[in-house]
Amino acid sequence: MIDATRYPLLARIEHPSDLRQLSQTQLQDVADELRAYLIESVASSGGHFGAGLGVVELTVALHWLFETPHDRLVWDVGHQCYPHKILTGRRDRITTIKKKDGLAPFPRREESEYDTFGVGHSSTSISAALGMAIANQRRGDMRKVVAVIGDGAMTAGMAFEAMNHGGDVEPEMLVVLNDNGMSISENVGALTKTLARLLANRTLNSWRERAKRAIPRQSFMGRFFKRWEEHAKGMFMPSTLFEELGFHYTGPIDGHDMDALVAAMKTVKDLPGPQLLHVITTKGKGYAPAENAQIDYHAVGPFDPQAGVIKKAPGKITYTQVFGDWLCDMAAADERLYGITPAMREGSGLVRFSREYPQRYFDVAIAEQHAVTLAAGMACEDAKPVVAIYSTFLQRAYDQAIHDVALQNLDVLFAVDRGGVVGPDGDTHSGSFDLSYLRCLPNMVVMAPADENECRAMLSTGFKHEGPAAVRYPRGTGPGVAIHEDLETLPLGKAELRRRGHGLALLSFGAMLAPAAELAAELDATLVNMRFVKPLDEDMILEMARTHDAFVTFEDNAVAGGAGSGVAECLAAHGIAMPILHLGLPDKFLEHGSREEVLSMAGLDLPSMRRAILARFPQLAQRTTANG
Amino acid sequence: MIDATRYPLLARIEHPSDLRQLSQTQLQDVADELRAYLIESVASSGGHFGAGLGVVELTVALHWLFETPHDRLVWDVGHQCYPHKILTGRRDRITTIKKKDGLAPFPRREESEYDTFGVGHSSTSISAALGMAIANQRRGDMRKVVAVIGDGAMTAGMAFEAMNHGGDVEPEMLVVLNDNGMSISENVGALTKTLARLLANRTLNSWRERAKRAIPRQSFMGRFFKRWEEHAKGMFMPSTLFEELGFHYTGPIDGHDMDALVAAMKTVKDLPGPQLLHVITTKGKGYAPAENAQIDYHAVGPFDPQAGVIKKAPGKITYTQVFGDWLCDMAAADERLYGITPAMREGSGLVRFSREYPQRYFDVAIAEQHAVTLAAGMACEDAKPVVAIYSTFLQRAYDQAIHDVALQNLDVLFAVDRGGVVGPDGDTHSGSFDLSYLRCLPNMVVMAPADENECRAMLSTGFKHEGPAAVRYPRGTGPGVAIHEDLETLPLGKAELRRRGHGLALLSFGAMLAPAAELAAELDATLVNMRFVKPLDEDMILEMARTHDAFVTFEDNAVAGGAGSGVAECLAAHGIAMPILHLGLPDKFLEHGSREEVLSMAGLDLPSMRRAILARFPQLAQRTTANG
Repeated sequence: MIDATRYPLLARIEHPSDLRQLSQTQLQDVADELRAYLIESVASSGGHFGAGLGVVELTVALHWLFETPHDRLVWDVGHQCYPHKILTGRRDRITTIKKKDGLAPFPRREESEYDTFGVGHSSTSISAALGMAIANQRRGDMRKVVAVIGDGAMTAGMAFEAMNHGGDVEPEMLVVLNDNGMSISENVGALTKTLARLLANRTLNSWRERAKRAIPRQSFMGRFFKRWEEHAKGMFMPSTLFEELGFHYTGPIDGHDMDALVAAMKTVKDLPGPQLLHVITTKGKGYAPAENAQIDYHAVGPFDPQAGVIKKAPGKITYTQVFGDWLCDMAAADERLYGITPAMREGSGLVRFSREYPQRYFDVAIAEQHAVTLAAGMACEDAKPVVAIYSTFLQRAYDQAIHDVALQNLDVLFAVDRGGVVGPDGDTHSGSFDLSYLRCLPNMVVMAPADENECRAMLSTGFKHEGPAAVRYPRGTGPGVAIHEDLETLPLGKAELRRRGHGLALLSFGAMLAPAAELAAELDATLVNMRFVKPLDEDMILEMARTHDAFVTFEDNAVAGGAGSGVAECLAAHGIAMPILHLGLPDKFLEHGSREEVLSMAGLDLPSMRRAILARFPQLAQRTTANG
Repeated sequence: MIDATRYPLLARIEHPSDLRQLSQTQLQDVADELRAYLIESVASSGGHFGAGLGVVELTVALHWLFETPHDRLVWDVGHQCYPHKILTGRRDRITTIKKKDGLAPFPRREESEYDTFGVGHSSTSISAALGMAIANQRRGDMRKVVAVIGDGAMTAGMAFEAMNHGGDVEPEMLVVLNDNGMSISENVGALTKTLARLLANRTLNSWRERAKRAIPRQSFMGRFFKRWEEHAKGMFMPSTLFEELGFHYTGPIDGHDMDALVAAMKTVKDLPGPQLLHVITTKGKGYAPAENAQIDYHAVGPFDPQAGVIKKAPGKITYTQVFGDWLCDMAAADERLYGITPAMREGSGLVRFSREYPQRYFDVAIAEQHAVTLAAGMACEDAKPVVAIYSTFLQRAYDQAIHDVALQNLDVLFAVDRGGVVGPDGDTHSGSFDLSYLRCLPNMVVMAPADENECRAMLSTGFKHEGPAAVRYPRGTGPGVAIHEDLETLPLGKAELRRRGHGLALLSFGAMLAPAAELAAELDATLVNMRFVKPLDEDMILEMARTHDAFVTFEDNAVAGGAGSGVAECLAAHGIAMPILHLGLPDKFLEHGSREEVLSMAGLDLPSMRRAILARFPQLAQRTTANG
């Protein structure tokens, strides 16, 4: 429970309606309490940090001014939703965020009526808000709709598409551009420079605004001014990219100056047509260590607010680090290598590469579609690009992977991080589908490593293979296998027999090898590390079929269309009918929790898998004493 | 062979090097011949028409000025590539376009070294050209790179992403914006208005250009001017959206005035950094009927150039028309229905709906990502949006279908046209993967109709189902079944037993029912029209498994992860091992040809399928006399 002596105002706010009982003069105090409470909460539980601190004033102002949840507030990405959750009935549960059965790390419709649109990926808010505005306004319901989007998220093509459409349809809606000069990494792209220029033109913009507002819009003079403005804009008035897209621009406003913020919002709230309010904020605002190290404080584990986040001594190496080291080593060996990331330098392990090979490193902003086709273009010119991308974000560039890469059989390597179950980030970030959506593509080689060293070898294999290839590896650490420093490759499409047993053959894809190995030993089953989802090792599968009675396939991808399904297709293609059990992700979205908890929800923990195998093949029960 | 008396210049041009032997004064004559030859050729063979006519001068100027193929010319979409193909060694084969073993309908790397980037979907050219420029320039190879992109294609987020990145990286590259005010339909979006404004500001722009060029860029004054300009731009100089994105803007230029075009191109060719040349063209230029009816002449069948295209009396109704009629009927019955298309009003059958329900019709421009999330936003507000989209273009919105629709279980209906084999448009447009990439998504209902009336019933079923649903139907006409005017629904997840035979059960998905029915009769096999790819009718599958010895599944989707694979997963989940043969698309991209020819390439013609079944189940041979 909240301590009402330390948080007297916040303790009274169960819902935004309580906030709206307060006067404007109290809002900064609310913001101060909210910020302190947020620092205390996230320090104790961990979670997304800097983004929330940056929007404390904005969140207070929005809920004070708009009649939420009747008015619709759509947060982009959702990293910044903690203050929103605190003000909307979830104050006392905020420390449960990201934990199993706790609050979701992002806005989630099922969780609260104040979470109008579920999110996790960036740049969806303008499209969603536009859809809401249209659906309501077409039937005469004029409730307000507000999208809050960061400058990083604004670099995505999808946001541009939505602005282009919104500026054409001209609904009543407000887009708040929360400009903190950051996405998760530093921002890149020409848009960043444009925003900086707007910031520099603060005086001019405010003059422009005053000139426009001095004349009532619906008066004769107003209509004249509007028409004159349309022409004048192109002649002598400075216009902004947003105005070219049909939005009325106001800003920039200091997002930590509550009075300025509320005043600006009050004005744009009642202006007709699509409005863009440009607000300047500081990521990590109010907590000095976070302001000074914005990337480190984007998301944190629990920490002592006095001491700040203390970087842990590195433990086991993550797959992300395996990739980052491999990339540098391969770049040294082959100057044709280029590394591309859609705004995930830190998350994808590209920090070292970006420093050592700045000329061959490309952060293209939050632009997955462009990232993949950029790589395709490079590959046309005898370069060998590597696209480092999360499984869940590769979904954003699916057509580019098909139409620009696979179809042209171009030499692009996809380093697909966060494949399979991701854990705390929840279902929006789950890499549950990549094996299904990639293995149906002709020309595509698809690999999944069972350990760190195999990951490195697969990256080399995919890189040296002349054609499209994907290596998909999980979040976090592997079993801790020693890594060979060389750049050895694996024979394409060859599986590895790990253990010879009898009766039952366990065919394991990727990170499921460790539990599969335990079960193989227990059940005296044969164990194959399949390595290649595509091309499958058909010889191995056929030999296993000849010498065994049944198969179990293991993968941390959806069973539907997954790697195990490919094994079944191979059997069918060769006219073989044999019992096969597919262990993989079930046909439902999996909520957040630790990786182990989510695997368990999915029935992919060791006891569940043992039970499933013994239920299917009860004759094996005599082989094990551990049938729990 | 070309008639050298009618086309004296064109007959001498085997390759662009021949064109470059000519003087600038001869270029308009070349263009005139090229245009006449194009009209004659396409009239005799059919194909994309208006776009090519619009870029005749542009194509001549580009190949004359740039050292193709050493310099890289990247065409966007590729509808407009016929003049390019004629000038680059394929003049005498241009009438084979879209035909089996003939020229591809779009640029294709395998076809010619002048086709630097294969295409078919829009808005990829800037990304690809940027990749080429970077890869070459990083190693000191300063060959020129030019992307030619239409104003329609420029509305896609992907083009914005590429501009944003290009303006940041600042490579030497030229983007030619071919502004004809059209994509396939009329353009929409705020960008269209912006381009119109640029056109209106022609005088001002030319003054601005002259002022800039008067001062050498590298001189002291030039550097001063540049720095001043950066500030002044924001103050009093008009800037364009493209300049905000870091491209130097030149234009607009009349794209049919050869001298103006060549002069402008000569200038921008040698300017440093990323350049955008804005060229105004007329789709269908030089053939009056095409200029006056641009949508009708986008792509044509063979026609008499004197008479023009004569609209054929409607024959059998297409699936597209079934959808278009259903949409209007359902809109009349339920006012919550909204129809959304990403710039494919004609192709997706929305013309009537757009006229009868303009307030509920949304063409969002070439913006598939936005289209889907817009629908998700509408669905949050008790609307029932229908997204009409081609299978191949839904690939562009895959993440939005997952993250914004399926994950939130929102009530969006996807009307997926051109599912399966498409024929003449070739592999870029093939709908080969939708069943694989959709059926792995939780919450998603996936249907495939066997005939026109079933398509209508499925659309009603998906619309009334409260949650995400997709109906994927093929290009062209169906078997010609009578259509019931009501809005009846089908029971969710229920298959239909069409014929009871013995031994072998044929399980058919979608449009493959007709050949499956022929084979069932021949082989005295059982035939099930599966209807639902997801949820599968498990009861039916289990009953069939109990009463039959083997299954054959039929679908015009990739076998890998396809509907048949789902049947095998169902059997495996129930511990049933039985022989199953999957008939579907093989693991390769299929080139263009008629739909029948492509099905035959894929082994999905009747004789091939009969052979495949009898090879697998030779005991059936005695049942048929038709085993060819």
